[in-house]
Amino acid sequence: MFKELETSAVGTQRPLTELLAALRWNGDGLVPAVAQDARSRDVLMVAWMSRESLEETLATGRVCYWSRSRARLWRKGEESGHVQRLVELRTNCDGAAILALVDQTGPACHTNRQSCFYLKVEGNDVVVVAAPEVDRPET
Amino acid sequence: MFKELETSAVGTQRPLTELLAALRWNGDGLVPAVAQDARSRDVLMVAWMSRESLEETLATGRVCYWSRSRARLWRKGEESGHVQRLVELRTNCDGAAILALVDQTGPACHTNRQSCFYLKVEGNDVVVVAAPEVDRPET
Repeated sequence: MFKELETSAVGTQRPLTELLAALRWNGDGLVPAVAQDARSRDVLMVAWMSRESLEETLATGRVCYWSRSRARLWRKGEESGHVQRLVELRTNCDGAAILALVDQTGPACHTNRQSCFYLKVEGNDVVVVAAPEVDRPET
Repeated sequence: MFKELETSAVGTQRPLTELLAALRWNGDGLVPAVAQDARSRDVLMVAWMSRESLEETLATGRVCYWSRSRARLWRKGEESGHVQRLVELRTNCDGAAILALVDQTGPACHTNRQSCFYLKVEGNDVVVVAAPEVDRPET
C-alpha cells in the first residue's frame, strides 16, 4: 500500500481499514507516535500507539496511547486532566510512524513542562532548558 | 539521571557522557529520533539512532541515523544529497526519544516530498496530501 501511494497523485484515497492493516506495527503491536502542538508547532512528546489506541483516538478525537510501562491503554490526561484533542493525524511514507497534531490542554509532560523535550545538548553537556508550568489557581 | 533532572532548575547541567549512558536504548540499542525542520517547524521524519549514530551526529553536526533495513549507519543524504545539518538536539523527559532540529537540504523524504508525513487520515480514508518536489535544473 505505502509503495503504491508513493507515486499516487495528491488527493488519492484509500480506506482507513487498509491503512490500519498496513501500518508497520512492531513485535509488540506498536508504532511510535509524535504529538505536535497544532498552534505552537512544538514537538510535545513521543509515545506509542497500538491499533486499538489509534482507532480510539480517531473515533473519539481525544488522543489515546498505549502505555508500555502500565501495559494498557493510556488516555492522555486521564489523571492530570492534560488531555490532547486531535486536530489532524498523519502517517509517514512507510507506515512506521504516526504524527498527531493536537490541541493540548495544560502541559504535555508529566513533569508539568509544556513539552517533554526539555533536555538540550550543549557541547559536552546536557542542560535543562525549560521549567515546569506554575499552577495558576482559578480567580 | 532523568528522574533527578525532572526537578532540577533551568540551567542545570550533566555531562553528555552520562546522558549517552542513561538513554533508554531498546533491545536493538536504538532510540526513536524525530527530525523537525528548524525553520518551517514541520516534522520531517522519524528514524532511529544508535549510540554510535548519535555520537557521530553530535561530533559532525550532520545527522546520522541507524538504518534498520540496511543494518548500518545511515548518514542522511549520503545518496540523495538531501543532508540534514543539526541545529539543536534534545532528548525527552525519560530519555526514550530524541528530537533533532535540522536545517534540511532538499526534500527529507525518499519519495522526494518535503516531509515523510504526507498521508493524512480524513474520516474513513487516508489521503495523499503532498506531491514530490520537482527537480529544478540549474539555470
